[in-house]
Amino acid sequence: MNDSSVTRTPPLHDPEARGFASDNYAGIHPEILEAISRANGGHQVAYGADVYTQHLQSVFQRHFGDVATAYPVFNGTGANVVSLQAMTERWDAVICAESAHINVDECGAPERLGGLKLLSVPTPLGKLTPDLVDLQAWGWGNEHRAQPKVVSITQSTELGTLYSVEEVAAIVSHAHEHDLLVHLDGARIANAAAALDVPLRAFTTDLGVDVVSFGGTKNGLMLGECVVVLNPEAVRGMTFLRKLSMQLASKMRFVSVQLDALLSGDLWLRNASHANAMAARLEAAVSGVDGVEVQRPVEANAVFAILPPSVTERMQKRYPFYVWDESTGEVRWMTSFDTTEADVDGFAAALRDEMATDHTT
Amino acid sequence: MNDSSVTRTPPLHDPEARGFASDNYAGIHPEILEAISRANGGHQVAYGADVYTQHLQSVFQRHFGDVATAYPVFNGTGANVVSLQAMTERWDAVICAESAHINVDECGAPERLGGLKLLSVPTPLGKLTPDLVDLQAWGWGNEHRAQPKVVSITQSTELGTLYSVEEVAAIVSHAHEHDLLVHLDGARIANAAAALDVPLRAFTTDLGVDVVSFGGTKNGLMLGECVVVLNPEAVRGMTFLRKLSMQLASKMRFVSVQLDALLSGDLWLRNASHANAMAARLEAAVSGVDGVEVQRPVEANAVFAILPPSVTERMQKRYPFYVWDESTGEVRWMTSFDTTEADVDGFAAALRDEMATDHTT
Amino acid sequence: MNDSSVTRTPPLHDPEARGFASDNYAGIHPEILEAISRANGGHQVAYGADVYTQHLQSVFQRHFGDVATAYPVFNGTGANVVSLQAMTERWDAVICAESAHINVDECGAPERLGGLKLLSVPTPLGKLTPDLVDLQAWGWGNEHRAQPKVVSITQSTELGTLYSVEEVAAIVSHAHEHDLLVHLDGARIANAAAALDVPLRAFTTDLGVDVVSFGGTKNGLMLGECVVVLNPEAVRGMTFLRKLSMQLASKMRFVSVQLDALLSGDLWLRNASHANAMAARLEAAVSGVDGVEVQRPVEANAVFAILPPSVTERMQKRYPFYVWDESTGEVRWMTSFDTTEADVDGFAAALRDEMATDHTT
Amino acid sequence: MNDSSVTRTPPLHDPEARGFASDNYAGIHPEILEAISRANGGHQVAYGADVYTQHLQSVFQRHFGDVATAYPVFNGTGANVVSLQAMTERWDAVICAESAHINVDECGAPERLGGLKLLSVPTPLGKLTPDLVDLQAWGWGNEHRAQPKVVSITQSTELGTLYSVEEVAAIVSHAHEHDLLVHLDGARIANAAAALDVPLRAFTTDLGVDVVSFGGTKNGLMLGECVVVLNPEAVRGMTFLRKLSMQLASKMRFVSVQLDALLSGDLWLRNASHANAMAARLEAAVSGVDGVEVQRPVEANAVFAILPPSVTERMQKRYPFYVWDESTGEVRWMTSFDTTEADVDGFAAALRDEMATDHTT
Repeated sequence: MNDSSVTRTPPLHDPEARGFASDNYAGIHPEILEAISRANGGHQVAYGADVYTQHLQSVFQRHFGDVATAYPVFNGTGANVVSLQAMTERWDAVICAESAHINVDECGAPERLGGLKLLSVPTPLGKLTPDLVDLQAWGWGNEHRAQPKVVSITQSTELGTLYSVEEVAAIVSHAHEHDLLVHLDGARIANAAAALDVPLRAFTTDLGVDVVSFGGTKNGLMLGECVVVLNPEAVRGMTFLRKLSMQLASKMRFVSVQLDALLSGDLWLRNASHANAMAARLEAAVSGVDGVEVQRPVEANAVFAILPPSVTERMQKRYPFYVWDESTGEVRWMTSFDTTEADVDGFAAALRDEMATDHTT
Repeated sequence: MNDSSVTRTPPLHDPEARGFASDNYAGIHPEILEAISRANGGHQVAYGADVYTQHLQSVFQRHFGDVATAYPVFNGTGANVVSLQAMTERWDAVICAESAHINVDECGAPERLGGLKLLSVPTPLGKLTPDLVDLQAWGWGNEHRAQPKVVSITQSTELGTLYSVEEVAAIVSHAHEHDLLVHLDGARIANAAAALDVPLRAFTTDLGVDVVSFGGTKNGLMLGECVVVLNPEAVRGMTFLRKLSMQLASKMRFVSVQLDALLSGDLWLRNASHANAMAARLEAAVSGVDGVEVQRPVEANAVFAILPPSVTERMQKRYPFYVWDESTGEVRWMTSFDTTEADVDGFAAALRDEMATDHTT
Repeated sequence: MNDSSVTRTPPLHDPEARGFASDNYAGIHPEILEAISRANGGHQVAYGADVYTQHLQSVFQRHFGDVATAYPVFNGTGANVVSLQAMTERWDAVICAESAHINVDECGAPERLGGLKLLSVPTPLGKLTPDLVDLQAWGWGNEHRAQPKVVSITQSTELGTLYSVEEVAAIVSHAHEHDLLVHLDGARIANAAAALDVPLRAFTTDLGVDVVSFGGTKNGLMLGECVVVLNPEAVRGMTFLRKLSMQLASKMRFVSVQLDALLSGDLWLRNASHANAMAARLEAAVSGVDGVEVQRPVEANAVFAILPPSVTERMQKRYPFYVWDESTGEVRWMTSFDTTEADVDGFAAALRDEMATDHTT
Repeated sequence: MNDSSVTRTPPLHDPEARGFASDNYAGIHPEILEAISRANGGHQVAYGADVYTQHLQSVFQRHFGDVATAYPVFNGTGANVVSLQAMTERWDAVICAESAHINVDECGAPERLGGLKLLSVPTPLGKLTPDLVDLQAWGWGNEHRAQPKVVSITQSTELGTLYSVEEVAAIVSHAHEHDLLVHLDGARIANAAAALDVPLRAFTTDLGVDVVSFGGTKNGLMLGECVVVLNPEAVRGMTFLRKLSMQLASKMRFVSVQLDALLSGDLWLRNASHANAMAARLEAAVSGVDGVEVQRPVEANAVFAILPPSVTERMQKRYPFYVWDESTGEVRWMTSFDTTEADVDGFAAALRDEMATDHTT
C-alpha cells in the first residue's frame, strides 16, 4: 500500500472517539479489513459464483449444520425482507412483536416491497411466547384475513433482552404445530449466542428454526448480513428474490470474505462477548447512580435507562446516544466490539457527575 | 495490519488471473481499499450522518454543480429503483430502451418493488432518440395508460455505445418540452466521460439531466453507487425511498469514502480511461482476425463480436467471458481498470490461434 | 319485462328467508333495481363519462358540499385502498384502530397493493381518540419510520359503535394540527347519520374530514361504493389510482345510478334508520334473556352478545349469523334494510327457547 | 315494481342513441336484467357462498369441462391480474403481445399491483406465435432475468383479429413444452367462439389452456367477468388473491346470476354472433367507400379503418367512436349485442356522405 498517500489524506474523524449510540457507529474490525484485502486482486465471478462465497457455505454449515445455505446480502432490512418473501405466498402474513425491527424500523419495507402483512403483538420485553403468537395465529382459510404463515422473532431482541433456548424451543414447537414457519432476525445473533453461552445452532438449527437473518455489520463487519436457510422446504426462489430485492452484490466476494473471517475462527464470539461484557459493566456502573433507573434485564449489548431529560441533554453533548422514548425519558446505550473499559468507566463517571449536579428532579 | 495472519490465511484465488467477463469481476483499486482503511476506527454516526458522507457532497458538487445532492446506495439496481420511484407518482411510467438494464437485467425490480411501468422501445444501438421517445410519449390524462413521466437513458449503454453530448442534449430538451424528466443510468458514466473527453457535468448537469445513477462498483470500488440528484424539483422523498428500498447502509462512511476516493482526485478518470483504452486495443487486435465480426462501434469498455460457437466454447475455457446472444453467437468482452496490455494481447493471440484451428465454419 | 321467462326460471333461493349474518346478505332494494333499469338502453360513454355519473356529482354535493367529488368504485376495500393511496406518498403510513376493516378484513390489500403501512392502535370500542392517535403520531423526518400521514376512522365502527360529532371533531382537529389527513371509512356511514340524527356532512365536511369511503352496498345497493373527496388538496391521481387499482367500472352508469337513487331522495336514510331500529329492537328483545350478555353499546345496526356455544350452534341452524370471537363466545347479529319486526321477534323468541332449554351453562 | 316512480324519474339519456365507440357503451341485455331481479329478495350468503355462485360452477363446467372452476370478479383488469398472480411466483414473468390489454390498457395494474413483469413482443395482428413467444422465452435460472412462466394471449384480440383453433393449439403446445402456462384473456371470448363457430372449450380446455379470463361485460352484462381455472395445478391461492386484489363482490349472487343467464342458454352466442354480424355488415358497407381503408381482417366485432382526420372529426359529432392511432388516422368501430342493422346502415351512409364532401384529401 501507499503510505505516502495516507499521509497526504488524513482521516476526517477522530479514530479514538467512541460513544454508546449504536453498534452501527463502530467501524470495521482489523481482521475483517484484512480479509477484504486478502480477497482482493485478480478476477472472480460476480454475483456470488466466486470461491469466497462458495467457501462461506462450509463455514456456515459448521455453525448451523450441513443443510444450511448462506445467501449474503447487503443489510439487515434486506435479509429480513428477502427471507420473509421466500417463506410466504402473496397472501400470507408474519406474526411478530410490536417492537420488532421489521415492524417499526424499516420504513414499511416488508409491506411495501415484500407485499407482506405483519400481524404484530404487544410484548412486555420484546419477546413473543406461544400464547402471544396465538393472539394472531388464527383465521386460516378465511379469505378476508391475511394468512398467518411465519412467526418472526428477534434474538437478541430490539430491547436488549434474550430468549432462552427453552423459550425459542417453545415458540418453534408451537409454530410448527400450527404449520407456521419460524424466522429469526439475528441482527445481533452473536450477542445472543455469547450471552447464552451456547453454539449458534443451539437456538436455531437444533430447535427447528427455518430461516435466520444472520447479522454481521453490528458485530464488526464493514457491511454484510446473510440469509441462512436452515430448512430448504421453508423457502422458494431465494436467488431470484435476493436479486429482485436489490440485495445481490456484484463483487460478492468482498461481502462473503468478511462473513468468513467473522465465523471461520472465533472472531464472532470474541466481538460479541466483549460487547456484552461492556454492557454488563455499564449496567453495574450506572445501577448504583442515584436517579438512574435501568429498564429491563440487560442480557446482551444494550442498556436502557430512564434519566432526567436535563441530564440526558447534557450527557449527549459529551457522548452520542439515543433517546428511546421521549415520553418516558428512556434512553438506550449500546456497546460494541470496540467499546473499551475506559469508555464505560468514563461514561459512568460523567453520568454520576451530571446526576449529582442536576437540580431538575 | 497483521502481516502474520495474512501468511496464515492465503487467498483462495489467483490474484493474477483476469478475464473479459465483466468489470464486476475485477476487485478493489488499492487507493479505494486504502480509503476504506482511512475511514476506519472510532465511531461515526450511522445511516449517512457521518463526516465522510458529508464531505462527499462537496466532492459530487465539484463534478456536477452546486445543487447536486448525493445519496450513496449499495448497488446499481438500487440506485435506479430509488431514483425512478423518487421521480414518479404511483401511476407514472418510464420510457427506456428495450435493452436497458432496468428492463432486462433487474429481475423485474423496477416493476415489482418500485411499482413502475416501463415503456420500452427497440433501438438499434441501445440508444434512444427524440423520435424513439415519441413512440411511447403520449396518452397523458388517459387513465387507462400508465403516464409517461421519465425518460431513462444509459450512458455508456449496455451495448458499449455512447451518446454524444449533442444526442443527450436532444433527448433532454425533447423530454423537458413534454414535461418528462430525464434519468441517466450511469453505471459506467466514468467510461462515458473518459471516452467523450468531457467533464461529467457536460452531458448531465449542463444539459438539464435531472437525476443520475452514478456507478462506482464497475470502476474500481468494492461496492458503492450513488443517486445524484441534479434537479431537486424532480424528486420527492429521497431519504425515505432509499431506506424503504433497503439501500440505506448503516456504516455508510465506508461507502462514501470509496466514492470520495474515486472522485476527489482523478482516479475515476484514470480507471475509466484505462479500461476504455484496453477495449480499443482489444478491438484493434481482434478486428484483423479472420472470422471475427466486431458488432457495433466500440466506444467505451465493451467489445461485442460474433464468433463461431466452437471457438467461443474453447476460448471460454481459457478466459471467462459471456455469450450475449445464443441465437447469433455474439459474445461480450468487457475490460476494466485492472486489465493489462498483456491480458489483451494474450487474449487476442489465443483467439487468433483458436480461429485458425477451427474447422467448423 | 318478460314475465313468462320469470315463470320459466324460478329463483334458486327462498326470497323470504332472512337472517342476521350480515347486511351484505341482503339483496337489492326495489328502488335501486328500478334505477338500474331506468339507466338501461342505448349507449353511454364508458368508464365514468356518462350522464349518470355526471349527475351523481351534484347529488353528492347536496349532501357533502359543493367541493365534493365522487368517484364510484366496486367495493369497500377498493374505496379504502384507492382513497389511502391518493392521500399518501410511497413512504407514508395510516393510523387506524386495530379493529379497523383495513387492518383485519382486507387480506392485506392496503399493504400489498397500496404499498401502505398501517400503524394500528388497540381501542376498547373500535374508536380512536386524539390520545390514541398520538400513540402512533410521531417520528416525522426519521427515515426508518413509515411517516404518519393519515388517520383513518370507521363510522359506524366495525364494533357497532358510533363516534359522536364531537368525537370526530376532536380527532380531525388534532390530526390537522399535526398535518395528518383524515379518512373516514363509511361502509355504514348512513347508519351513523341516521343514528346521530344529523346530515351526512355534519360529521364529515363540516368538521374537515378529507376523504370518505361512502358505502352503498350494505345499505341496499346491488354493489357500489364511492370515494368522496371533500378536500381536493388531500389527494393526487384519483382517476389513475382508481383504474390501476382495478376499481374502474366500464359501464359505470349502472353503479352511479344506484348511488343516485340511494341519495337523491331519502332512501339512504329510510334504509339505515330501519336497520338501526331493528337492531335496537333486537337488543331490547334479547337483553332480557337470561344468560345473554350484550356487549358494547348498540348504536347502529349491529348487536354483539355472548352466548353459550351450545346455544350458538343450535341457533345458527335456524338463523345464519357469525361468531365474532371463538375464544369468548361472542357472536354478531347484523340487521339490514329488509329486516322485519317479525324477523327480530322470531329470532328473539327462538333465542329465549334455546337458552331456556340449554343445560350447558 | 313501481311504475309510478318510473314516470317520476325519467332516464337522463336517450335509450335509442347508439354508436360504435365500444361494446362497453352498450347497456344490459334484458334477460340479464331479469336474472338480477330473479336473484333478488331474501338473504344469501355473501362473498360467493350463495346458491347462484354455486350453480354457476355447473354452468361453466358444461362449457369448459368438469374440472373448470369459476371465480366471478368485477372487471377484466381484475380477472387478468388475479389470474396472472395465481399462475406466477413473485419472480416470474408473463409473455404477451405488445398490444395486449394487460400491457397497454390497465395503467400498469399487472406490474404495480400484481408485481408482474411483462415481456412483450411486437406482433403484426395482435397475435403471438410460437416463434414470437421464443423471442422472450429464455433465461430460466438466470437470476437477473424475470423468469418466463406464462404466455398470455387475447381471443379475440385487441385488434379485432382471431386466433384459429390451430394457432392456439400451436401456442399452447409450444408453451407447455417449455413449462410455460397459458392464460387466455377472453374479454371477447364469446365473439371468438361465435366467429370460429366452435364451442368455447374448443380453443381453451380441449387444447390445454390453463386459465381463462372470461368476459361478460362486453357481451351484455351490467358487470361481471370470471376467472375460469381449467388446470387446477396452474394456480395457487385463487380465493385469497381475488380478495386481496379487491375483486371479491360481497353480494356476489348478482354477478353470478348474470353470468349464469348469459351461459346457461344461448344468450352468450346470440349476443356475440349478432355483434360479429354487425361488424361484418359494417365492413361490407364501408369497404366500398372511396378513401376508407379497412385495416386488418375483420374477424370479430371490431372494424379498424383509416379515414381522413377531417372526416373523422365530423363523423364523431354524429356517432361516438375512438381514434385508435392519431399518427395514422386509424379509427376503431366496435359493434355490440344491441347494434342494429339500421345503426350500421345509417353510419355507413353518413360516412359515404362525409367522404364525398371531404376536400381535404
